[in-house]
Amino acid sequence: MAVITSVETSDVRFPTSLELDGSDAVNVDPDYSAAYVRIAADNGEEGFALVFTGGRGNEIVVKAIESFGARILGKDLDSLVGDLGAAARSLVHDSQLRWLGPEKGVSHMAAGAVINALWDIAARRANKPLWKFLAELSPEELVAAIDFTHITDALTPDEALAILREGQDGKEARIAELERDGYPAYTTSPGWLGYSDEKLVRLSREAVDDGFGLIKLKVGGSVEDDRRRLGLVRDLLGPDFPIAIDANQRWDVPEAIEWLEQLKEFNVYWIEEATSTDDVVGHAAIRKAIAPMRVATGEAVQSRIIFKQLLQLEGIDVMQIDSTRVAGVSENLANILLAKKFGVPVCPHAGGVGLCELVQHFSFFDYAVVSKTQDNRFIEYVDHLHEHFLEPVVIRDGRYQAPQRPGVGAEMHDASVTEWTFPAGAGWVEVGDRAAVTGAR
Amino acid sequence: MAVITSVETSDVRFPTSLELDGSDAVNVDPDYSAAYVRIAADNGEEGFALVFTGGRGNEIVVKAIESFGARILGKDLDSLVGDLGAAARSLVHDSQLRWLGPEKGVSHMAAGAVINALWDIAARRANKPLWKFLAELSPEELVAAIDFTHITDALTPDEALAILREGQDGKEARIAELERDGYPAYTTSPGWLGYSDEKLVRLSREAVDDGFGLIKLKVGGSVEDDRRRLGLVRDLLGPDFPIAIDANQRWDVPEAIEWLEQLKEFNVYWIEEATSTDDVVGHAAIRKAIAPMRVATGEAVQSRIIFKQLLQLEGIDVMQIDSTRVAGVSENLANILLAKKFGVPVCPHAGGVGLCELVQHFSFFDYAVVSKTQDNRFIEYVDHLHEHFLEPVVIRDGRYQAPQRPGVGAEMHDASVTEWTFPAGAGWVEVGDRAAVTGAR
Repeated sequence: MAVITSVETSDVRFPTSLELDGSDAVNVDPDYSAAYVRIAADNGEEGFALVFTGGRGNEIVVKAIESFGARILGKDLDSLVGDLGAAARSLVHDSQLRWLGPEKGVSHMAAGAVINALWDIAARRANKPLWKFLAELSPEELVAAIDFTHITDALTPDEALAILREGQDGKEARIAELERDGYPAYTTSPGWLGYSDEKLVRLSREAVDDGFGLIKLKVGGSVEDDRRRLGLVRDLLGPDFPIAIDANQRWDVPEAIEWLEQLKEFNVYWIEEATSTDDVVGHAAIRKAIAPMRVATGEAVQSRIIFKQLLQLEGIDVMQIDSTRVAGVSENLANILLAKKFGVPVCPHAGGVGLCELVQHFSFFDYAVVSKTQDNRFIEYVDHLHEHFLEPVVIRDGRYQAPQRPGVGAEMHDASVTEWTFPAGAGWVEVGDRAAVTGAR
Repeated sequence: MAVITSVETSDVRFPTSLELDGSDAVNVDPDYSAAYVRIAADNGEEGFALVFTGGRGNEIVVKAIESFGARILGKDLDSLVGDLGAAARSLVHDSQLRWLGPEKGVSHMAAGAVINALWDIAARRANKPLWKFLAELSPEELVAAIDFTHITDALTPDEALAILREGQDGKEARIAELERDGYPAYTTSPGWLGYSDEKLVRLSREAVDDGFGLIKLKVGGSVEDDRRRLGLVRDLLGPDFPIAIDANQRWDVPEAIEWLEQLKEFNVYWIEEATSTDDVVGHAAIRKAIAPMRVATGEAVQSRIIFKQLLQLEGIDVMQIDSTRVAGVSENLANILLAKKFGVPVCPHAGGVGLCELVQHFSFFDYAVVSKTQDNRFIEYVDHLHEHFLEPVVIRDGRYQAPQRPGVGAEMHDASVTEWTFPAGAGWVEVGDRAAVTGAR
């Protein structure tokens, strides 16, 4: 028997606001940050996880992880890892903590971090990277890990089981293919709003030269800027190259429809976060009005319950799951199965700190045993901050290469954590008050 | 010029789990708690606010209030109070903090506390209780205080202005009437799931004797228990007395419909929180299936954006606003106007700690200048913990009496805060590990 003896958190932040990397119409000055957690047991086992944030407020998530972590401190690790579904439900539905959500925002992300750290230990025990660990679980084990609360009107455990059983056919060949060829990526690196036209064009060309089959531009500053920027990139890449756009929830519903009408001629591949991602009715209205432009969302979708409704109302063409927004691996299994049930491709959100490292596992798993196709599917890629992770993502010819290291992929170098712990780490002492996170702006 | 010099928080909790007051199908052992905040300026002015929670996790909200509070520390109080709409938007849409929501859960409730403390100062400056302060603002001033982001497809500033201008007619007479006669209350005190049948019947009779025109029972433990308990109270009160029921999000959509089918014969006045309040599509499906039973929700509705959709999809007959769930007074003004636009009565959620003291102001305001009727409208009332407030609610003949004291009503006695600060207050030292909040259960 192993007992959990510590839940150690760190407030890790990077001064990305100095460069305007990651700037968009709403997130104008993010300092990419991680509320980082290390869970340890008395037998020496460790699990790592993180929640991505935009800088200020990272300390709130750290505090929340401590509170959720306290619920598993002193508990038997074998029981927790032996029934990850039960462990996740006990955290998410804690009779007192649930008032803070339920199942949304800070408390939900914090529960997700603790749940992911437990999945990390489970995958390490099996000596497999998360995606392969998941792909090699039985359909019954996967279904047992999922919380179907409030989604059975769209997906029952039996339906999930049937999808996963169908997914076993040819699984070994798909796993071998993933290990050989990887999975398609797309890149947002060229298109941040803070970049000049020259930088936009140069990075767009580089992205295509690097083998990416889809690039994405931020929009929503002004229609004129969006038309000019889209025009430049469309001219550069020709009429058919897939170019997606992302408004980061900038618009109200009528405004979104009017604005997008003026971008139609640029053959947009998808419009992402056209309005509040809490607005499932709004997404459905926008999608209907701007057809055939495809509608995507997900990085800020708080739970499977919102994804369920986006699918029920036919509000999205693309589901963009995020690895640290929801209640961990357990909830993303539900999201991926919902997408399959409704015939919508999963194209995960990434970027920030560690999101690429984490979320890639879900697409690899999705291909191995759920969707069984890579058509119209891409994992977002942004070339930021990978060097801080023990296993940075590897992109070759515009494709994510299969992660090899056991676990969920969240473990950071100790030196990185120490240097960039806010506010006392050496990196922050050097940056001083130049970054937005410190409140100087 | 006055400058904000301190944002002082307290983690105040009460060991209500010892009594099973407040127990329902989901919240089985709440320790009613308040993340309490006092904002002070260098000229001696003070504003008070709180966020209600269920116990564990109160420390997370306290931390979040500190983080949002830091955004106004050192700022000019006159500017903040002089444009409360701008102050609220600057907190809610802070470019880095917004990632934690946006506009939901812990971070949104914390922003709401800071916003409410500013409203408290504004109302104290005017020497009026909040409801009267709001009722006597001009329609233009009220509209300026509202954040219409992501709701203009349902309610525009012009529409809001028109509603409020219409509301001026006869306002003085309605204010006088409110000061004389108060506003109808309903009570949940008899119906907690933890209570025996004998206690249920005794308290139901007492409630009717006390003049309440509506009582509410918790349901969702088992159909048999619900039928027996509803049968007892229906027999006691006759076929027509309004009895509402509350499932606290216990059911999935198909389960809710099946369960409620078996309670139809008891002439239920409304079913509250039949499923996840994030599930606007689910609410609409349930309402359609169980008509003519009325559907209510709101205490856990995270923002005006969810209320908007519940109204757009005809998912609710009753809007139950909460005073500490959303971004303060500013967002509840939007909620009340949305309800008016869609012709749905507002029946606020209360109970817990201080929620009665806070939320009553909104119904008084609603009657004075928005709905102009009290038909089918009640403010929830639970007889708990009022003694800790400087102006405890007054109920007479089943009606809330108009609050008189300037401000929003959140100020607690210093002695109460000291005694029940967790975990070091004298009250908690005496309770020891008997309450659920300590993690002993």
